[in-house]
Amino acid sequence: MRSPLSTLGRRTGPPAISWLMNLTLAHPKLISLAAGFTDNVSLPVDEARALLDEILSAPRTGQPALQYGTTAGDPLLRELTAKRLAELDTLATGAAVRDRRTLGSPSANRRAATVAKGISPDRLLITHGSQQLLYLLTEALCDPGDIVLVEDPTYFVYLGIAQSHGLRCRGVRLLPDGIDLAHLEQVLEGLRRAGELPRVKFLYLVSYHQNPTGYTTDFAKKAAALQLLRRYERFAGHPLFLLEDAAYRELRFAGDDIPSALAAPGGADRVLYAGTFSKPFATGVRVGFGVLPEPVLTTATRIKGNHDFGTANLLQQLLARALASGAYDRHLAKLQRRYAHKAGAMTAAIRAHFPVDVDWQTPAGGLYVWARAPQRLRTGPRSRFFQTSLQQQVLYVPGALCYAEDPVRRKPDHELRLSFGGADEQKLEAGIARLGRALAARLGK
Amino acid sequence: MRSPLSTLGRRTGPPAISWLMNLTLAHPKLISLAAGFTDNVSLPVDEARALLDEILSAPRTGQPALQYGTTAGDPLLRELTAKRLAELDTLATGAAVRDRRTLGSPSANRRAATVAKGISPDRLLITHGSQQLLYLLTEALCDPGDIVLVEDPTYFVYLGIAQSHGLRCRGVRLLPDGIDLAHLEQVLEGLRRAGELPRVKFLYLVSYHQNPTGYTTDFAKKAAALQLLRRYERFAGHPLFLLEDAAYRELRFAGDDIPSALAAPGGADRVLYAGTFSKPFATGVRVGFGVLPEPVLTTATRIKGNHDFGTANLLQQLLARALASGAYDRHLAKLQRRYAHKAGAMTAAIRAHFPVDVDWQTPAGGLYVWARAPQRLRTGPRSRFFQTSLQQQVLYVPGALCYAEDPVRRKPDHELRLSFGGADEQKLEAGIARLGRALAARLGK
Repeated sequence: MRSPLSTLGRRTGPPAISWLMNLTLAHPKLISLAAGFTDNVSLPVDEARALLDEILSAPRTGQPALQYGTTAGDPLLRELTAKRLAELDTLATGAAVRDRRTLGSPSANRRAATVAKGISPDRLLITHGSQQLLYLLTEALCDPGDIVLVEDPTYFVYLGIAQSHGLRCRGVRLLPDGIDLAHLEQVLEGLRRAGELPRVKFLYLVSYHQNPTGYTTDFAKKAAALQLLRRYERFAGHPLFLLEDAAYRELRFAGDDIPSALAAPGGADRVLYAGTFSKPFATGVRVGFGVLPEPVLTTATRIKGNHDFGTANLLQQLLARALASGAYDRHLAKLQRRYAHKAGAMTAAIRAHFPVDVDWQTPAGGLYVWARAPQRLRTGPRSRFFQTSLQQQVLYVPGALCYAEDPVRRKPDHELRLSFGGADEQKLEAGIARLGRALAARLGK
Repeated sequence: MRSPLSTLGRRTGPPAISWLMNLTLAHPKLISLAAGFTDNVSLPVDEARALLDEILSAPRTGQPALQYGTTAGDPLLRELTAKRLAELDTLATGAAVRDRRTLGSPSANRRAATVAKGISPDRLLITHGSQQLLYLLTEALCDPGDIVLVEDPTYFVYLGIAQSHGLRCRGVRLLPDGIDLAHLEQVLEGLRRAGELPRVKFLYLVSYHQNPTGYTTDFAKKAAALQLLRRYERFAGHPLFLLEDAAYRELRFAGDDIPSALAAPGGADRVLYAGTFSKPFATGVRVGFGVLPEPVLTTATRIKGNHDFGTANLLQQLLARALASGAYDRHLAKLQRRYAHKAGAMTAAIRAHFPVDVDWQTPAGGLYVWARAPQRLRTGPRSRFFQTSLQQQVLYVPGALCYAEDPVRRKPDHELRLSFGGADEQKLEAGIARLGRALAARLGK
């Protein structure tokens, strides 16, 4: 008998790091710098308890929290989210203007501030984590064979979604201040010449403290990328969106915030903004959101209705109360200090233990340090270095997992994604020391 | 410029009853017997508060509830769910044997009891409501153009999922004791002759207190349907599954429970069982589950990983504690009494106010009464009767919405789905009285 699975079912592979998770289970003494888990001890247990207790202490607030809501999401949460986002963008625009980090003229900056202030709650869709939004947008926009442009490297779970939907990915080189605009233009131009632009749907950017590199794309680059995409729309024949995944935006512990692409000229029409409260508050409370233009908003909301009618109201009301009461901001400030400390512990250890020819950057947020070994060192799952690390009882995400299957380049295979999210300071130090020994052993030092 | 939407995006229509919801908003005095909401005052506000307080009172239980879990779901919740389901089936099998409600021989009954006891937690996938499972299974199994067999009438939200995925539906007549087996055979035989069986993926049954009819499919019929599907597999060339949607199983307030199709011969291999804790506990706590055979389980779990990595842990831990502590069962018993009372209020009002030529059945569970007017009375959205009802300030779901687009029959258009879930007793009485006046007016009595 044939398989009963659909084409999508057959295409959907195992998660990129399920084998890594299995290794963790099989080696209990392993220090995992692989998992993108958030810090356990800083989870807002007391805060969540107090907030839920308030919500459920009266039928007036308790009953709605336990009842169905609307598919688009709780009106108060949407309002608070839109307001928060507009404030973030307004503040960040001010900072960017002071730093002359924007591309443009004073009028462009004024426009950015105005756009930021004008986010209507009606443009928001609340989702079961921002991951669900990435999925919904892919469903809403992409047919098998379509092309999405991704950062090179990018968030590997998104690559799984793309593979599952039969999409082709094209990598755009990533620099420490964001995507390489010249390369973006080159990729677009190549696709135009090949007649493939009608298959391109969006450029996917993890724009803040990126997973896996920790890099942040500056505002000028986002604005310029939008302009570039707009220029190529007449060859595509349809809008070319910028999908801005801001999952790590609020996990910032150094430097200024940067305005979202929504605040750039044309942002309101062409940016699909994906945000989340899960990572900055609690990953067990999965609440993400999108700010979307039409017709994407209506379509994604309808598809979400078919998925689940709307995100569990209890989670939404918890977040709404956390935002309204200030508990969210207080927790976030603590979390930022905590991650700053853990990132510091990891980078201090890297400085002490890694050979000097391994390249890395001090992160300003997020959960990751991206380490680039000399090209002669292979870091992939079947490499001798990976095995050496495993013998040293330490685990990382091989960099190659974060690169799309792009026929126009070989996948780099000499990098490591190191997470300081899950492990405590002592384990971070020990794990990095072990990795340092493995690096020295394989690099012959 | 062309639309940027995917084929799926363009196919995904507005939810079947969004216009009904808009009517409710536009007419605040309207009594809605349309929405499938659960009863507000019986939501377990105090119970949820106490359970969450316990979970979050200590870091040992609080931290895991606020952290990521695994995609398949919390191990304890899966274990408790598998155990509960096996107990339900074992008890129900006993009842069925006593009532001679089973199809078969004593050996078949013994086998049913054994199968029921043997549900492994490894076969479970926890989802964000059972709605998400329906979506995942459709993705995992169905390509555009494929065929699903549905009850005639069926759950209209599933029809939306099918339409969105470009599926064709074929209706199988529904009788008060479940699907019409002779008609199922006739439909399968017709598809075989047309060479269409390779496109058929599953038979979708809402087997307990069905939405919209309130009918329950008896065990013998489920077992026979499985046998029939098995017989046609050699023409299909792949497994033909029975997707058993048991969303309303625990909302039973009269009669005995009936074993699930999992307990029938061959059930372990061919039944996709969809259950939920949302409706019997709290619809704002969206936790559903599937019991699935391979390769469907692995594939659906992978797709779920792409959707959201797993259902929010806080919700799962709340349900696990509710199940383990007995709070779930205590609440369920209350809920069953409450719905029995509300169903009684509705049926008493129907008896008092509806013309005798409107046919209906006393429900033994669920949220709905299905009323069948004489065929000459049209009940559709554009019918004069619908307008008369609206003038009388009462809303129902027109029966025609619950029928698939099936080229081989005309959609019946003389029925009404009446929900006793959301409205209180007084409104149920008043709403039915108004509908009775509208019926009398249009039927000329």
